[in-house]
Amino acid sequence: MVEDYKLSVYSANMELVKSGLVTFTWGNASAIDRAKGLVIIKPSGVAYDMMSPEDMTVVDLEGRIVEGRLKPSSDTPTHLVLYKAFPEIGGIAHFHSEFATSWAQAGTDIPLLGTTHADYFAGDVPCTREMTDKEIRGDYERETGNVIVERFTSGLLDPLQIPGVLVKNHGPFTWGESVAEAVFHAAVLEQVSKIAYFSHTLNRHYSMNSSLAEKHYSRKHGTGKYYGQ
Amino acid sequence: MVEDYKLSVYSANMELVKSGLVTFTWGNASAIDRAKGLVIIKPSGVAYDMMSPEDMTVVDLEGRIVEGRLKPSSDTPTHLVLYKAFPEIGGIAHFHSEFATSWAQAGTDIPLLGTTHADYFAGDVPCTREMTDKEIRGDYERETGNVIVERFTSGLLDPLQIPGVLVKNHGPFTWGESVAEAVFHAAVLEQVSKIAYFSHTLNRHYSMNSSLAEKHYSRKHGTGKYYGQ
Amino acid sequence: MVEDYKLSVYSANMELVKSGLVTFTWGNASAIDRAKGLVIIKPSGVAYDMMSPEDMTVVDLEGRIVEGRLKPSSDTPTHLVLYKAFPEIGGIAHFHSEFATSWAQAGTDIPLLGTTHADYFAGDVPCTREMTDKEIRGDYERETGNVIVERFTSGLLDPLQIPGVLVKNHGPFTWGESVAEAVFHAAVLEQVSKIAYFSHTLNRHYSMNSSLAEKHYSRKHGTGKYYGQ
Amino acid sequence: MVEDYKLSVYSANMELVKSGLVTFTWGNASAIDRAKGLVIIKPSGVAYDMMSPEDMTVVDLEGRIVEGRLKPSSDTPTHLVLYKAFPEIGGIAHFHSEFATSWAQAGTDIPLLGTTHADYFAGDVPCTREMTDKEIRGDYERETGNVIVERFTSGLLDPLQIPGVLVKNHGPFTWGESVAEAVFHAAVLEQVSKIAYFSHTLNRHYSMNSSLAEKHYSRKHGTGKYYGQ
Repeated sequence: MVEDYKLSVYSANMELVKSGLVTFTWGNASAIDRAKGLVIIKPSGVAYDMMSPEDMTVVDLEGRIVEGRLKPSSDTPTHLVLYKAFPEIGGIAHFHSEFATSWAQAGTDIPLLGTTHADYFAGDVPCTREMTDKEIRGDYERETGNVIVERFTSGLLDPLQIPGVLVKNHGPFTWGESVAEAVFHAAVLEQVSKIAYFSHTLNRHYSMNSSLAEKHYSRKHGTGKYYGQ
Repeated sequence: MVEDYKLSVYSANMELVKSGLVTFTWGNASAIDRAKGLVIIKPSGVAYDMMSPEDMTVVDLEGRIVEGRLKPSSDTPTHLVLYKAFPEIGGIAHFHSEFATSWAQAGTDIPLLGTTHADYFAGDVPCTREMTDKEIRGDYERETGNVIVERFTSGLLDPLQIPGVLVKNHGPFTWGESVAEAVFHAAVLEQVSKIAYFSHTLNRHYSMNSSLAEKHYSRKHGTGKYYGQ
Repeated sequence: MVEDYKLSVYSANMELVKSGLVTFTWGNASAIDRAKGLVIIKPSGVAYDMMSPEDMTVVDLEGRIVEGRLKPSSDTPTHLVLYKAFPEIGGIAHFHSEFATSWAQAGTDIPLLGTTHADYFAGDVPCTREMTDKEIRGDYERETGNVIVERFTSGLLDPLQIPGVLVKNHGPFTWGESVAEAVFHAAVLEQVSKIAYFSHTLNRHYSMNSSLAEKHYSRKHGTGKYYGQ
Repeated sequence: MVEDYKLSVYSANMELVKSGLVTFTWGNASAIDRAKGLVIIKPSGVAYDMMSPEDMTVVDLEGRIVEGRLKPSSDTPTHLVLYKAFPEIGGIAHFHSEFATSWAQAGTDIPLLGTTHADYFAGDVPCTREMTDKEIRGDYERETGNVIVERFTSGLLDPLQIPGVLVKNHGPFTWGESVAEAVFHAAVLEQVSKIAYFSHTLNRHYSMNSSLAEKHYSRKHGTGKYYGQ
């Protein structure tokens, strides 16, 4: 039914591990088949080296299992909220990499400090607000998606220009037009988080001309882009 | 007599090394056979690559060697105190991994800052108080066990919900229902310590809604747990 | 035409990657053939493992492609400004390594704190000033070269004695008499940046006798040098 | 003449590299044959992978080459001063490892914060005072040895109980009864420096009961030692 997606979701999950972004089973990636309205996602709590493409679970946008013998990732409701709210995205990655997670635990946005950041994120990487008791005790994973969407809506942020977020006290989610791009953005975010950590602990009185950030983002992504072949 | 335990204790010690938690011979792991009242532990100061399962030393709960030609780890009396005080645990690991040890040397608890921490530890990872001269000059390794137990007793902490501790100016001990789980908790603790280090040096004014911690711990360990298959 | 240079530029780019200085495609190295007035440089945005020596692009000092089917690195105009301003240099490397970039993002010079630094850089590693909106929106990559040259000119710095620079909010450039030496200086700069980071976060009230720096630089590079065979 | 020493000095130098303590050619190790009054040391500035045991240079205690076609390490005069002042030591290592060097650049002693430190160093790892212009411009490498000796003499430190030192703005030297032990102490010092770095940046208001340090040092090295077999 969605065999190609199962392979790309499997590969993306394995790439997350190979990139050093996942400890134990702490990560998951998914893709959406927009035509069929189906989401293909890693099963919950399965060891990566025991997993094969056929183990990917297929759910509809209400989270009902359509195909697969394993329970989907417990974070599936978060993915579903994001797919509904951000119609341009085709894949999502969630992980607990060391530096991005440390910013999420610190509870602050990752400031835009350099051109490597600006090449992929057109602004600070936002951190969500603290969730309320009610949200946590209710439909927690769905509410996690909701606070992400709230942050983008209230901040007038474009999810394609800012392809990732930190969930406070939890960790990062990244996305892209495909699940492969979501995982690429995961690796970029970790590298950006790491360099920002070192910069921030060296000198908290930094500054960056916002024109420089716009220049770098636009030379890679703007209408007149000229980076690459 | 306890050949299966020797193999699992040997494997757990080797896993500690493979996980990057041990420098030189600075670590040890043990298991208890509750039925026989015997503890199986790594011998003292032996190089890992020279060691085989038969080298594991077997002692009774008073520390008398029951089987084995090598002296047990010099930390054996600490293990024995913990096995007596915490009847639910089946294995213990001790090591000097970089980040967990740095918190032990700093002399502070590891604050609960994120969900990866909350998934395995239902609260801060406690640090013991400074030992007195009398405790150090007396039966030092046994007293080390005693200050750990004191911390759990006085803090009303459940050793299965908080499966590890920092001994001040020394390093971490972790435990579990088996020695394999003790070593798994060792790796989790090091990762948690590392991310908390980065968070703490980024922003010391952090906060975490305690409901979020309870939610994450319970979705993995509570009666209604739903993580994994 | 310049086949030898293509091979050495290709090798230098691959060495940048092997040295851990490059994430994804975030780096480039070039050489100049002074006799012919040609610069040989990595193509823009090409994956390293798909690249061969023949893919190196050859441009003249005005940036016109003389040989090669691929667009040169988007940073080519920066390289050209440096080759014109610093006639003694034969190769340039640009990269976004973790520690050097973090100092660039922090916007400060790397202070001369130790003899490993002094062995290769006869003073602080300078950081350029913030670029103006006009410079950024104009011929940005050429202006990046200009602010580097301005820093060396205004600071009376000798580019052979200080074979590298940090571009504020961007990252390092290094150079040398050949492209191989530029890449060697890249690796030295990253190591120097890393140790300076740790020193700076340990104790910001450091000092170094400038005679010690002069001694170390001169025992490797002075007229009476006596290090090595 | 001293073929066995050449082999052990060669092996110790290679072990320094394998342990990750040396970048490029920034390190050297030597041994002394006390009976013959000869010192066997790595040649200056030679790449490790081009080096063989026969390349080790043999000098007498005045630094005159007795055997070998290559110039000895430029740090040879420092080694000679230490061999003369510390008659119990048989080998010396010098290197610029990341964390030990960062403490040397910060210009402070490494505080005794934990038992892994106390197992091998019976106190803080001392840092030498700043050298004077006269010392630096004079017989610099010999004076480097002299400030080390001065620190041990004035501080009433026993070089066997404190088998290493930080030379301010330069880097560490370690030693031992053999060159192999000197290199082992090098690896211990780097690990101790690393953990102390993390502790120090976490919480500068640390404390350690000195009885604990004495206990750990003596259980490994005292007359009643009981660690190991």
